Formats: sequence, structure tokens, C-alpha cells
Amino acid sequence: MKYRVAQVTFLLFTLVAPVMSAQDTDVLLSDTQPRNVILIIGDGMDDHQLTIARNYLKGPQGTLLLDTLPVRGVSQILTVQDDDAETPVFVADSANTATSMATGVVTSRGRIATAAGTDKPLPSIIDELELAGFRTGLVTTSSVTDATPSAFVAKINFRLCENPSLMEEVTFYGLNLGSCKQHMKSSGGRGSIAEQLAASSVDVILGGGTEHFDMPAEEGGLSVKDQAQANGFQWLTTAEQLAAAGNDKRLLGLFSSGTMPVRLRGENGREAEEPSPSLLNRISDYLGDVELPEPMVCEPNPEYASVPSLKRMTDAALSHLAAGNSRGFFLMIESASIDKQSHERKPCGSIGEVEQLDEALQSALDFAKQQPRTLIIVTADHSQAAQLVSFDSMFKDYTIPAYTPGKVARIRTPQGHELAVNYATSNFFMEEHTGAQVPLYANSEGVKLIPNYLHQPQIYHITRQYLGLPTK
Amino acid sequence: MKYRVAQVTFLLFTLVAPVMSAQDTDVLLSDTQPRNVILIIGDGMDDHQLTIARNYLKGPQGTLLLDTLPVRGVSQILTVQDDDAETPVFVADSANTATSMATGVVTSRGRIATAAGTDKPLPSIIDELELAGFRTGLVTTSSVTDATPSAFVAKINFRLCENPSLMEEVTFYGLNLGSCKQHMKSSGGRGSIAEQLAASSVDVILGGGTEHFDMPAEEGGLSVKDQAQANGFQWLTTAEQLAAAGNDKRLLGLFSSGTMPVRLRGENGREAEEPSPSLLNRISDYLGDVELPEPMVCEPNPEYASVPSLKRMTDAALSHLAAGNSRGFFLMIESASIDKQSHERKPCGSIGEVEQLDEALQSALDFAKQQPRTLIIVTADHSQAAQLVSFDSMFKDYTIPAYTPGKVARIRTPQGHELAVNYATSNFFMEEHTGAQVPLYANSEGVKLIPNYLHQPQIYHITRQYLGLPTK
Repeated sequence: MKYRVAQVTFLLFTLVAPVMSAQDTDVLLSDTQPRNVILIIGDGMDDHQLTIARNYLKGPQGTLLLDTLPVRGVSQILTVQDDDAETPVFVADSANTATSMATGVVTSRGRIATAAGTDKPLPSIIDELELAGFRTGLVTTSSVTDATPSAFVAKINFRLCENPSLMEEVTFYGLNLGSCKQHMKSSGGRGSIAEQLAASSVDVILGGGTEHFDMPAEEGGLSVKDQAQANGFQWLTTAEQLAAAGNDKRLLGLFSSGTMPVRLRGENGREAEEPSPSLLNRISDYLGDVELPEPMVCEPNPEYASVPSLKRMTDAALSHLAAGNSRGFFLMIESASIDKQSHERKPCGSIGEVEQLDEALQSALDFAKQQPRTLIIVTADHSQAAQLVSFDSMFKDYTIPAYTPGKVARIRTPQGHELAVNYATSNFFMEEHTGAQVPLYANSEGVKLIPNYLHQPQIYHITRQYLGLPTK
Repeated sequence: MKYRVAQVTFLLFTLVAPVMSAQDTDVLLSDTQPRNVILIIGDGMDDHQLTIARNYLKGPQGTLLLDTLPVRGVSQILTVQDDDAETPVFVADSANTATSMATGVVTSRGRIATAAGTDKPLPSIIDELELAGFRTGLVTTSSVTDATPSAFVAKINFRLCENPSLMEEVTFYGLNLGSCKQHMKSSGGRGSIAEQLAASSVDVILGGGTEHFDMPAEEGGLSVKDQAQANGFQWLTTAEQLAAAGNDKRLLGLFSSGTMPVRLRGENGREAEEPSPSLLNRISDYLGDVELPEPMVCEPNPEYASVPSLKRMTDAALSHLAAGNSRGFFLMIESASIDKQSHERKPCGSIGEVEQLDEALQSALDFAKQQPRTLIIVTADHSQAAQLVSFDSMFKDYTIPAYTPGKVARIRTPQGHELAVNYATSNFFMEEHTGAQVPLYANSEGVKLIPNYLHQPQIYHITRQYLGLPTK
């Protein structure tokens, strides 16, 4: 599998080489400057999510900061069956996709930096960069134990084993969803995701997830939080503590129990709703009429006020990672709830989280002005269910009521226009992921490095290459 | 509206300028060579359609020819209300989007090169290039009177007025969908779309649509076909006639009654189907189980064998347009049924039409090797309903049957893998368009010209700029 990825990548580099060969800004920079990579992941941030957010936040003629980046390509998502790593699966989850970007290896859904089938732990970019003297950081709006950040540090067979209490059995209303027994410390393993983060050498970990640390570690006695502090982490839980934190100790800042509250929500917490066909239309699709959900505005989520923004966490992480650092760093920044709010059919939530990502990008670009050898990559891990659809059906003149079989939200934008979002991948209480190739952006440092089309694991190899690690 | 587009474009060009400034291959080429633009439009060819087609045709590790192009950006679709051209609409149709690309003007859905509200005819790139001495061509797998090709030549208020019989009233099962009375010749207008094509100076028109020409023209007496022949067109209806056609006369080749037959279809003509939940599940979403449609293969569509491929039509058009031409040409090539088959929930059909587009691109690239001053742009006009979804629900372990509220097709790929496509924007017999930004590609000639993010009307301005027409 890896061999084939490398082949395709070589082909792509060969094909784009003529475009890139005329450019060389490196001569302007000293080789003694630190080199940094900032990888910004919009979880579920596909072309629909970007267009919905742009239309809402900037208007259809407006421009996200993302749109101005000099590199814009696409990333093809690869996943395989767990029992047969040669058989592709065409729709991914955040665990296997983060594993692709963190380790360069294609694995199966639900796995955190472990190989499909064999359960073999996979070395991550953070493991390798720490050995090479780089600093490292993880910033997310999810719990830091969630799939995307954890794949850069932890190695475990199942993403839901986030804390010691979930290792023997992960249950959902009495239903056994999985287990990580073989990774328990008592079995000679590394323990739960929270324990692995607490034991890590990462310099900055910021996000949500106190619930996974404020509990006894597997051995009993110390809590996972105690273990983290014993391992040298400063423990922060408020925006004020984050602002005041010194650079002398590594940071573990967790600002909410689980996923951090999102910035925007639907009016009075509304989400997408089912259209209400008339009785006659329930009898025949060709009769009667339909009532669509009432339009709504997006409003600030009151819970958001108490937590630091993604931009503030990004600024804190950049400041901490850069202070007195002559080697460089790797920082992963995730806007997690573009995906989570789409699962829950909450378009306002997703829009606010794209805005947070665009603001974090501003911080990254500002930083790169100070340290020009900073490669910024922005991408998504997989695509999502939400579709930008028409407020008026294309078929409204046919007198037959045409409406989605799923759920729809009609949003009034700040400019006073109406924008509709359809969610119709599942009758379940959560929407499904989808399998489209996802956006890939980079700043000017990416112009020589990043082809227009790549396979997601190549992001790992590009990071290694940029930071001067030997080619694998 | 146009002013704002220009502002944003200036901004984008400014922002990407540092990336482009180091490259200049123009010095290698003589200014006396002809300059050509080949605009390839995949109707409805969004990131889902591309990923579905790639996974099917090449496997998930494979590469479409499209993926190897050196420019890959996105195009933001703009549409407005017909009664208020300042109010954006977030989902487009092929008429207004083709108008954007053909004229640089944002109009309302259903309009062919006429202004929203005022009905004013809009000069198209083909009108302007003909005056400047360029040759022009249109190739499509739809009827040549369909929205995308017609916007480059015709000017009319409603896309369905494709022939003289549809001018007074377009009806659907007795329902009046619209009219183009004010554009009838008897009202001093240009007549139906077919009549406008017949009266045009376009050098090559290839596609489907004999049904719109084999009928009396508005004035009676001559048929629309007769008018076209009287205007100097060679009338071709078979692949053999196309292969034998000389370059001395302009070409009007129509190889099917309406839309040309597509290359692939579902097994025995199957399309996406509704899941069948058990009785218990119909009573409660949390009970019972569901039967999904049986997997199917894609098979050759028998009707396709009788028509020339998009590649053959492209080769014929390029040969005709280039013969003895020292000035250059503009050729629009459309793969129309990516969209049409998605409306009808037929994923195999859409896959075959992406394949046809990729083959036509090969012809264009081969041609550009012979005439290096050939800009090739590949894009879509709008996004579509189809979503690449998981064969297995992400939630299969929850014991609750999770399935789409819409319709799904499970396709067995030639490599033996299973790929599922969801259609769930409408309960109507046709799916809706969606509103996501769409892919935009170009060959090496586009590297200096095309920003990573643009508004769709900018494609018109880029074409003008490349061919040396004065800036508007």
C-alpha cells in the first residue's frame, strides 16, 4: 500500500515539476533559521461546508482568508478494511484519516495510529520530530483525546478508548461498541488515549476534555491529570490561565469537559428539520403541498463565551512553541466541530467553526511573516453530509411539492439572504460522513512542495521533507 | 454586480502574483502563432462526481488525467433573483452558469445570455471572437440547444424554448412552465435556440438534438435544418459522416434526437433505489432492520454504440478549427450527462460521462502539444446531488438500522470493491442541483492566468485576456 502511494506521488511530483522549477525563494533565507510546520485540519471541511460558510460569513462575492492562499489542491482519502488491508473502503472517519496524516499509513476506520489487522503501533510525525529536537503541539476544539489530535501521539486500536474507564468496554446504552483490553497497561500496553497524552513529551496540548483526565488512572491512586502534572505539564482550565501561562513548562490546557462549545448555533438552538407534507402529499407524491421549516438566523452560542477561541489557543501555542526555539516545531490545529455539528444537522455551528479556522489561519500567517520558514497546510480529513441546496426547489413551477426526504435548515444570512442546507445521508440520529476528495491549501512555502492532487498520507511525507527528516 | 466581481478579481490577482511572477515561458513562443482556448465543462462535475468516477474507473489509488493538470483551483458560482438582480441565489442551473462563463455576467436561473429582470441580450465570448477573426466551436453530449452550449450563441429568456414549437408556451403534462413570445421572430426577436444556432456563424457545432431542427421554422416553409444548410452548414448525423466531413464548410453534426446516449448504465438499467425497512422499523426508527438495494455492476449502454464519443467529436472539432487557421479559435466542450444522470439517480451514467470528459481532455492536451499557445480550462458549472457514501453505515454497530432517507446505489467496481452513491435532495422524480464551489483546472498556459479561487464569470474575462481582446 505504501509502495503504491510513493509511486503515485513520484509521478505527481514529476508532472508538476515544470510549474515549480522556476521558483526559488530559499536563497533569501538563512539555513540556520528554525523550520516549522503548521497543519490546520478542518474536520469535515469539504467544499459544501466552505461554500456555506463563505456565503454566510462574507456573502457570495466575499472571500475567506483561505481563498487567498497560493496553493489550492485536493487530497484523496484512503481507507481499508480492518480484516483485509488490501481492500479499499471509500468513506473514512477522523481516526483513520488523522492516522494517514500523522503516520503516512493507510489504516481502517476507528484506529488511532495502529495498523489495520495487525494492530501494530505506527510511529507518528510527532514521535519522529521529538527525537530530532523539534517542539510539538496539538490544538483542537474537540476533546484532546478525540480521534484527530490523538492520532499524532497515541497508538490504540479504537478511538473511543479515550480514558481508563473505557478500556475494557465502550458501551452505548448497554451496547458494547468495542474494547482496547490489549492496550491496557496491565496487559503491557500504553493505556488509554488520555493516559498516553499525559505521558507524552508534546510541548503544548490545548482543547477540551477534562472529563477524561479528572479520573483515576488505570493503576489507581493518581488521576490522569496528576500523571500529566507529574510528567511536567502545567494544567490550565481557563482562558485567563492560558493568557498567564509561562513558557518554562509544557502546557496541558483543557477548557471544557468534552468537545468545546461552538461559536454559533441556530435560533433558540434549532437544527435542520423535516419538511411537513400535507395529508394529501403523504398519500401521493404528486398531490398536496408541503410546509418547509421556518427560516432562522444563527445566534451566538452562550456557552462559547467562557472558552478561549481557536485563534487564542493558536496564538498561545505559537508563542510557546517559538520561544527560544532554534530548531523549529510542528503544530497541528484542528477545528473539530465543522464535522460534529454536521453530524447533528446544525449548520450554524459548522459555519462558526469554519470562521474559527479562518481566524486561526490568520494567526498562522502572521507568525509566518516573522518566521518565513513556516509551512502552513490547511486541509480537511474527510467530507461530510451537509449540502448547500436551493431555498426554492428547481422544480417549483411543476406544482408538485418537491422537498428533501431528509432534513433541511433555512438560514437567513447577516446580509438578509436565504441559504438552505440539506442533511440526508441517514435516518439515524447522526448523519454519515461522505467520501469526496477534500480541499488542500498551503502558504507560499508549499508552492514547491505540494502537488495539486495527492493522497492523504502524503501530507505526512511532505511534512517530513520540509523539516529535513530523511526520506522514508 | 459586475463592478464587485472585478474588484475581487483584482484582489485575487494581486494576492497570487508573487507565485506567478517567476514563471515566463512565453519567450519561447512566437507571437505569430495562433492562440486558442478550449473550455471543457463537466456539467454537474463536482468533487463527489470526480471521486466516485476515479474510484470506479482507476481505483482509489488511481489518477484521472484531470488530476495531473498543473492548475487546480475552485470556481464560486453566482446567481441572482430574476426580479432583483442584487439578491443572490445560492444554487445555480446550467443556463445561468453557462451565461456567466460565456458573457461574464451573473444572471438568473433559466436565462440564456440575457440579463436578469431586463431581458437584455448579452454579448458572448463567441460573438466577440468571431468579430476578432477567431474560429469558434461547440461540442456537447446534450442536445446542442441545451442550456450550456446555447448560452455561448443564443440570447433568450428561457432555456426550454429550444425550437420554434416551444416559443409560445413550454408545457409539461399540460402545465405551463414558461414562454419566450417576446423573442419570436414575429415579435422582432431572434427566434428559438435552434433557429439562433442555425443562423449563427459558429464553425463547428456537434452534439445531439435533431428533434429541434427537423421541424418547420417559425416562418413555415423551410425547416430549421434547411435554414442551417442555407446558412452554409454541412448537416451530419452519423459518426461516418463526421469522419468523412471536409473542412471547406462549417459543421452542424447532430447524432441523436435529443441528449446523446451515455456510455455506461446500471445493470439492466437499474438506478439508485430506496432502502426497504422492515415493518418494525417503519413503526420506530429504533427497531427492526432494513434491506438495502442489491449491489450492481455498471454495464455498457447498448444505445451508446451508435454515436461518436465525446473524444471523437472533440478530435473532429479540433481538426476543423485548426485547419489553415492562423488566428486561433475558441472551443467549448461539454460532458453534459454527468448532471443529467445525477438528476435521474444513475451513478453509472455519470461515471461514464466523467470518463468521456477525461478522454476529451487527452485530445485537447495532445492538440496543445502541437499548438502550445492553447489554454485548456476544465471546470464544472454547478454541483450536483450525488454523494459518495459508505457501503457500511458508520453506525452499523449500534444495532439500529441506519440508512438513507433518499435513494442509494451500491456499485461493484471493476476491481471488485463496493462503492455506494446517495441521492437525497428531493422526493421529486428528479434530484436538485447543489451550491458548492466547483473544481477548476487548467493546463500549463493557465499557470500565469488563473487564480486558485475565482468567481465563475471570471472565466469569460480570462478567455478574453488570453486571446488578446481588450480588457472590459
